[in-house]
Amino acid sequence: MSLIVQKFGGSSVANIDRIKKVAERVASYRRKGHKLVVVVSALGDTTDELIELVNQITDEPPEREMDMLLSTGEQVSVAILAIALDKLGFGAISFTGAQVGITTDSSHTRARILSIEASRIQEELKKGNIVIVAGFQGITPKHDITTLGRGGSDLTAVALAKTLNADMCEIYTDVDGVYTGDPRLIKNAKKIDEISYDEMLEMASLGAQVMQARSIEVAKKYDIPIHVRSSFSNNKGTMIIREVKRMEDVSVRGVTLNKNETKITICDVPDRPGIAAKIFKKIATSGINVDMIVQNVSHTRITDLSFTVPTASAARAVKITKQLSSKIGAGEIVEDQNVARISIVGVGMKSHPGVAAKMFDSLAKIKVNIEMISTSEISISCIINKKFAEKAMKTIHKQFNLGN
Amino acid sequence: MSLIVQKFGGSSVANIDRIKKVAERVASYRRKGHKLVVVVSALGDTTDELIELVNQITDEPPEREMDMLLSTGEQVSVAILAIALDKLGFGAISFTGAQVGITTDSSHTRARILSIEASRIQEELKKGNIVIVAGFQGITPKHDITTLGRGGSDLTAVALAKTLNADMCEIYTDVDGVYTGDPRLIKNAKKIDEISYDEMLEMASLGAQVMQARSIEVAKKYDIPIHVRSSFSNNKGTMIIREVKRMEDVSVRGVTLNKNETKITICDVPDRPGIAAKIFKKIATSGINVDMIVQNVSHTRITDLSFTVPTASAARAVKITKQLSSKIGAGEIVEDQNVARISIVGVGMKSHPGVAAKMFDSLAKIKVNIEMISTSEISISCIINKKFAEKAMKTIHKQFNLGN
Repeated sequence: MSLIVQKFGGSSVANIDRIKKVAERVASYRRKGHKLVVVVSALGDTTDELIELVNQITDEPPEREMDMLLSTGEQVSVAILAIALDKLGFGAISFTGAQVGITTDSSHTRARILSIEASRIQEELKKGNIVIVAGFQGITPKHDITTLGRGGSDLTAVALAKTLNADMCEIYTDVDGVYTGDPRLIKNAKKIDEISYDEMLEMASLGAQVMQARSIEVAKKYDIPIHVRSSFSNNKGTMIIREVKRMEDVSVRGVTLNKNETKITICDVPDRPGIAAKIFKKIATSGINVDMIVQNVSHTRITDLSFTVPTASAARAVKITKQLSSKIGAGEIVEDQNVARISIVGVGMKSHPGVAAKMFDSLAKIKVNIEMISTSEISISCIINKKFAEKAMKTIHKQFNLGN
Repeated sequence: MSLIVQKFGGSSVANIDRIKKVAERVASYRRKGHKLVVVVSALGDTTDELIELVNQITDEPPEREMDMLLSTGEQVSVAILAIALDKLGFGAISFTGAQVGITTDSSHTRARILSIEASRIQEELKKGNIVIVAGFQGITPKHDITTLGRGGSDLTAVALAKTLNADMCEIYTDVDGVYTGDPRLIKNAKKIDEISYDEMLEMASLGAQVMQARSIEVAKKYDIPIHVRSSFSNNKGTMIIREVKRMEDVSVRGVTLNKNETKITICDVPDRPGIAAKIFKKIATSGINVDMIVQNVSHTRITDLSFTVPTASAARAVKITKQLSSKIGAGEIVEDQNVARISIVGVGMKSHPGVAAKMFDSLAKIKVNIEMISTSEISISCIINKKFAEKAMKTIHKQFNLGN
């Protein structure tokens, strides 16, 4: 008999039929005697529908009120799942983030969890009830409702697993697990049976949309085993676990592709200390995440500075950069949405020399120009022209022999 | 500069355009320097849509989970209204019932308010913010979300007005105020400028759907002046106030009609002490409100017992009554949905003899048979055949000279 935290994403609870299926799955675990805490996202398109309502009023709503609004989506889901479980004859009780004491800071729309006070959950588990918790949300010490940012329900699940000392955290999604490459694009992409926290973290950050990156950080920190699997089948998915030795046999674990980035170039930047700091500090305080940064070597006193941001933030980033450019005496701003980031990830990379060269070689063979390069301990990313993205992905996947 | 509590019902916030209109009205009061606490119901059909989702699963959902579910409707409204006010340049902050400490007992779906801890509201008012509170909901001392029953947002508004010692409580609805008769049926029905708490309470209980009866009880208890008015115009509506002497000049204040009642008759009930108590105790513990009760005088050792219940509860009441009937040795159960209750209300009735006779006479003139009669200090009600309802209402309204 284990304590299991299960998280079901929006596609798993898109409509009443799917919620009934989720209830049946949860019930089947309860029947085996497990204690269950179930974290649920908002039903299908609820969040988008609520945002659409707000857009009829303004495109700059106060963030506190957006959190108040959007947190209702998960509250609806948990109540309906509890009702579905009751109908199946199982004791179930739903809670908001506030009710189970998920206390966060007050950074609305992207709050960080400070603590969880889980006594009410423990009490209900002791009674034999299935506990259902609204994902994605928390409450500040002053009782303002917050949300945890995109993918925040993953974070709720992992944080609860840590607080309750759960034996397992299961993340149910619409795919079978984590793949060596996007299975919609690469026919022979292989499901990965085991992946380390670090690799998963890189893959999530680099475009694999299976799990929220922050939640993986927490899982790593507290060593919480995670099972990513499909809510539409009973197949074993991917286990995300601490790095084990045998993993290093594989140099590259998978390939990821991100087509939602925009490259921004500031031309003719004066090449003196402190300029880059000034630019990126300004962008960061506007809440925009910069992904890659490349500064060309300068032979004169000026240089070009390129960086990528999520396309959704591009317009704001360009606006900020234009204002800055004239202040610091730099030149024009060039925006290029026509790019894609292709990355390879693998802990084994550290001990396998030549991995980068092999990746660049793959791209060269199909005559794809590399516009930017960035590397970490366990990943290599290239910015290329978007139109070659799929072809490049397939080629690299094959080159590293990742398929079945 | 006053402190005003304003309550906007579902039809006032049915869509984004109407919410914008509400925001403009609230803003116009703020501009005049008033402090404002605004209570809002769920957007238009939200509540029905949520119930429809549940009906796809079960028709007997746990009440705690229904409260969890339905309370989201008001949470959506308050957030959107706060966003609309922000867009107009006004400081506004929204709260759930839980956040402003509306503590209730744990009778889910019909909870009673125990206390309100309004320090956060006071704090925000002091900052100059417009405070927007979700109607209809509260929280138990154990932090379970509750709802206050149909029309519960009125109760939220009146209870907040009491707690904050507000100068006025305005109830915005889709009619201009309280009328001498249903203005959709009676062309020359007259808007009542002033009405006493007691009269309004009777009218609300007897079918006038302008305000929730429980909220009027609270207003009466604490002497809170209420202004019922339209959210679609600036006309003065109806003031609900403590009884004043001049009111007694009018014997009948208005006529109400309720077509949502069902008459249930238990035939051949043994005429001995305790039988009626047994029957109505059983019905009451099932949460069914009995409206009128009539027991025929018995010449033998058996009698017929008739009572009315809201039609929505009729099926359950019949089921309970059938079980009881065989236990106590009574006869068959006759259910008649084809009835209407017509009532006249007025504090002056006490001191004007002959009012009842005049009402019965009106009905006799148009050859309408009276099936049941019930009276209170300030009201007289008759159950008649539903098909004569409108005609009877018009005739009585004319007979008492209530029109313009």
